[in-house]
Amino acid sequence: MRTAYNEELRSIADSLVDMANLAGSAMARASSALLDADLQLAESVIAADERIDDLQRDLEARAIALLARQQPVATDLRVVVTSLRMSSDLERCGDLARHVAKVARRRYPGRAIPQDLRRTILEMGQLAERLMAQAAEVLLTRDTDAALQLEQDDDRMDELHRMIFHHLMDERWHHGVETAVDATLVGRYYERFADHAVSVARRVVFLVTGEHAEDATAQTPA
Amino acid sequence: MRTAYNEELRSIADSLVDMANLAGSAMARASSALLDADLQLAESVIAADERIDDLQRDLEARAIALLARQQPVATDLRVVVTSLRMSSDLERCGDLARHVAKVARRRYPGRAIPQDLRRTILEMGQLAERLMAQAAEVLLTRDTDAALQLEQDDDRMDELHRMIFHHLMDERWHHGVETAVDATLVGRYYERFADHAVSVARRVVFLVTGEHAEDATAQTPA
Repeated sequence: MRTAYNEELRSIADSLVDMANLAGSAMARASSALLDADLQLAESVIAADERIDDLQRDLEARAIALLARQQPVATDLRVVVTSLRMSSDLERCGDLARHVAKVARRRYPGRAIPQDLRRTILEMGQLAERLMAQAAEVLLTRDTDAALQLEQDDDRMDELHRMIFHHLMDERWHHGVETAVDATLVGRYYERFADHAVSVARRVVFLVTGEHAEDATAQTPA
Repeated sequence: MRTAYNEELRSIADSLVDMANLAGSAMARASSALLDADLQLAESVIAADERIDDLQRDLEARAIALLARQQPVATDLRVVVTSLRMSSDLERCGDLARHVAKVARRRYPGRAIPQDLRRTILEMGQLAERLMAQAAEVLLTRDTDAALQLEQDDDRMDELHRMIFHHLMDERWHHGVETAVDATLVGRYYERFADHAVSVARRVVFLVTGEHAEDATAQTPA
């Protein structure tokens, strides 16, 4: 009985890592689609989000079945409940990657991002991918130091997000309103993606240490 | 034992209704602060969000305690797990009201919203408040018809959200980029708020009928 329980718990943890990997890869590809105006890539990101949604639904069903059958208490119970919440974070990250891809699709064959914002968006995309890889690592290793590193990297994301706004508010901005709207939305998508990655890491830290960090999603980006 | 259990379950349901009422009221006040450039009101919305966050943390602790002590199965288990997810939706709605209030504060003593967007934003604010009141109603009554009505009202929110973009993309837009960025963000906040209200109602419907509607948060706003 105990072995079956541990196996089920491990399979839920594995699914979370799978979701994190898929979400990170989706955001990386969405960023390429955005910067290169690659319609085919954008479409593939949009279509692939279903896979993450399926994983979440499946994870949820298994978590509830496990609660019903095994009736865990204390730490085990908290692990299962927290897994449910982390799966919501990761499912949302898939949505945000899809949103970025949709901006790319909407402006095709044009490019949504002008040259002078390219470097910032490129860094946001890479940082988002890295943050999610770190979150996956934290899920696997439960390394609280890695989780702290993630918080610091998220500070850089906030900085990049602010840089977009400074750019948009600059009098020399000459790309018009449509491009400003796109950049505003895309900036927010990356920033939220990073928040959710941080949130996953924080939940792992909470499971390990029992200490509650402030909820990442409570932070305001702009 | 059974009575204690039912009382705990009822108290969790009551907290969800409290959270919905607070979130709806916060968004209504944030909308007034935004349209009237009322700094004091904006500050009060920003400060009051803590109350919703506290309610969520408290609800989560009680739900986990209930799972540990009472070991519910089948429908009861699903009610508790779903309550946890609904509390996340509602906590996020509080954040979104706070974000709207922060836009008002950032532009004070100016107005973030120009006259020609005023009517649209006013309707979005009222609709957001109404959607959340309906979600609270559905939580209380478990009336699946009311939940369906909510979906229809959310279609109007999507329409209003699109109207903002049409406005921004119009060649006659002459309010500059800063105002366009504010309107883009605010539009997104209302739209996400509505999504979460619909999500709460859908989760109730799922509890009642066992039929899974597509997740509201999976929809793209723009």
